[in-house]
Parts: sequence; C-alpha cells; structure tokens
Amino acid sequence: MTKPVLHTCARSRGLRATWAAEEAGVDIDLRILPFPPRYLAPEYLDLNPLGTVPLLVDGATRLTESCAIAHYLATREGYTPLAIAPGEEDYGAYLDYTYHADATITFPQTVYMRFAIFEKDKGWAEAGHAYAKWFHKRLVKVEQRLEGREFLCADRFTVADICIGYALVLAQSVGLDEGVPQSLKDYRARLTARPSYQRAFTREEEGRKAL
Amino acid sequence: MTKPVLHTCARSRGLRATWAAEEAGVDIDLRILPFPPRYLAPEYLDLNPLGTVPLLVDGATRLTESCAIAHYLATREGYTPLAIAPGEEDYGAYLDYTYHADATITFPQTVYMRFAIFEKDKGWAEAGHAYAKWFHKRLVKVEQRLEGREFLCADRFTVADICIGYALVLAQSVGLDEGVPQSLKDYRARLTARPSYQRAFTREEEGRKAL
Repeated sequence: MTKPVLHTCARSRGLRATWAAEEAGVDIDLRILPFPPRYLAPEYLDLNPLGTVPLLVDGATRLTESCAIAHYLATREGYTPLAIAPGEEDYGAYLDYTYHADATITFPQTVYMRFAIFEKDKGWAEAGHAYAKWFHKRLVKVEQRLEGREFLCADRFTVADICIGYALVLAQSVGLDEGVPQSLKDYRARLTARPSYQRAFTREEEGRKAL
Repeated sequence: MTKPVLHTCARSRGLRATWAAEEAGVDIDLRILPFPPRYLAPEYLDLNPLGTVPLLVDGATRLTESCAIAHYLATREGYTPLAIAPGEEDYGAYLDYTYHADATITFPQTVYMRFAIFEKDKGWAEAGHAYAKWFHKRLVKVEQRLEGREFLCADRFTVADICIGYALVLAQSVGLDEGVPQSLKDYRARLTARPSYQRAFTREEEGRKAL
C-alpha cells in the first residue's frame, strides 16, 4: 500500500482524518498548512482547486471530505472494527451518523462562524446566530441516540464517533457550547480523552508550530 | 427482509432515496408528507424529532440523511453495482462524492433558500446570495471530475451520481442555474432522463397530489 499524504490545517475538520489515522494505525504523511491556505499557501490550489482542507492523497485516490476520509482510512484494506459493514448490526445507523455529522451538525456552525465571527462587520451577525440556534436544535438526534449508550453504534468506538465527536469539539472552540446538552459534553470528554485523539491533536499542533 | 418505509416530501432531497430505491429495485412503502411537515403534519415529529425529511424506517433501522439512505438501499443486502466496495477501483472517490454532495454542494443552497427566498423579508437576502456564490465556486471539483467521464466513478452509474445529481436538480428548481457550467447541466440531463429517475419523480408527484 502507498503511504497516504494528508494535507490539512490544525484543528480544522481535518482533525477527523488525523484522528482516524491514529485509531486505525495507518501511517500517514501529515502536512500542516497555514490557515487559510487559499491565501497563505496559494500553491495548495494546484493540489486542491477547492482550496479546502483536508485533502487525502493515497496513490491515485484523492478525497476532500473529512468524514469520507475517516471512513476510508478505516476500510481501505477492507473493513476493520472502526467501521461497520453491510449486514452487521447498526450498519444503517453507522452510515447515518457519519453523514449527519457534516450535512446537519457541522455546516450550521460554519455559517455561524462566517457571519457572526469572520465577517461580523458585514451586518449579518444575526443571520449567523440564526444558524447557531438551528445547530443547537439539531443536536436532539444525537442526544436521544446516546441515552444509555457509550458510543453511537454497535457498543464500540467507530468512525461515527469521530465524525460526530469533531462537530462537538468545534462547538466548544467557536463559543457555541452553552446550548450543548451536558450528556453530549460528557460524550465529547470521553472521546477526546482517548490516547489516539490526544496523539492526533498533538501531531497537528506540532505541525502548526513548525510553520 | 422487511419492506422499508420512506417518509419524505416530494422533490426534497429525499428524492435521492426514492430514486435509489428505483435503481436498486428495492420495494419501498413511499409516504409523502406535506411541506413543511413540522407545521402541516406535526405528528411526524413523533417519528423524527428533527422534523426533517427524508426518514427511512427499515425494521429497527432508521436513517434521516438522504445520501446515507441512498447508499444504504444499494448495500443493505450486500454490495450491488450501484455502490463501490472497499478494494474496488474508485472506492475512495465514490465515498468522497457521496459525502461531498450534501456537506459541500447542497448546504450552501439551503442557506441561500432560507435567507434569499423563504425569509427574504428579514433583511438577510444578501447573506443568502453570498452562499449562492459559494455554491457556484464549489462546483469546480465535480466539473473537473466529469471531464471525459460520463459518470463520477468506475465508468458506471452509482449512488455518487444520485447524490451529486440531486444537488444539481435542486439548483435548477431554486433559480441557481445561471452559474452552473454547461457540462454539469448536460450531466444532469443524462441522469434525469434515466427511467428510474422518471419513475421516482412520478411516484413522488402522485403522492403529493393525493394529499
């Protein structure tokens, strides 16, 4: 197998990919970019015309979606216990939460960040706060799922926890934690205490400091 | 196997699920709701506290993410040619585009719809148009991928085409087609000409008219 190269920015949603690599034991070449790469590392646009992070390059395979990369790293040599295969219990739920993480839980936070933080001088801060409210309301699905469960699927840690877990890490870092239920804060604390998360976070920080 | 029940609104992103069921030959019980169900069918909140559509119920399995449902319907009894399995060529690309469809291509359209159409009286229409521009810029990845290709992955029609294809159908229906490249309009025309798409669209319309 080739050694995958992960281009990302520290603490971006690419953390899902760095974390998944640690959990899966996949040896990656981690290349940390300054944020935002579109302006501070414009040569990156040759690699990824979207200008977004992360980007995983694995031989001829290229992925730019963090949840897809996390699932890919857990299955590139066949299914591992980090993913759930067709026919296994909670297969449907596993798929659902890995898609739910960005499509429903992360995107409203990015709208909030844009309008209420990065571009707050444009007069759309209230529109950003409308999506903060939307984000908090959409947490009900994960909250109900975790009643009586330590992990989202199949009584074990999977990529679904990585995908959803990062969305909760983001909420804390951008000031949206007040509306996050305590049960989800506890879940996040369990996830981020994992040695693999700690290693991933440290690797990214060391890369960032070396810029 | 149980007969899956699909709760959705006609022409919503649940069309991905209705379409995938037709392509996969999965016999589903299609239940069309009035839009928005949160207000016009409040009993739906008992089934799905998010209030969103679609919702697929397949025995004890429940999914609310349209791209996850489309992939699930193509794999619930094991991998079919509509999906791409680990180890197969374009496996990584297949994953990437199925996640990309909502996480990067559909969500900016929903922000546009909210601020520039549904809530345009709130004074945030310009914020909505900012996301329309964002949407058009993000089409570059799909545009480049389809240069010289009829379908996104493995030289055949897959769920990746359903996921991305619906995002392009949505663009047309909400008035964002002006910034969509001609090559993507041609791709959409190829996809929506498929008998399975036509059957899915008709089934949803018949359900809507019967409300």
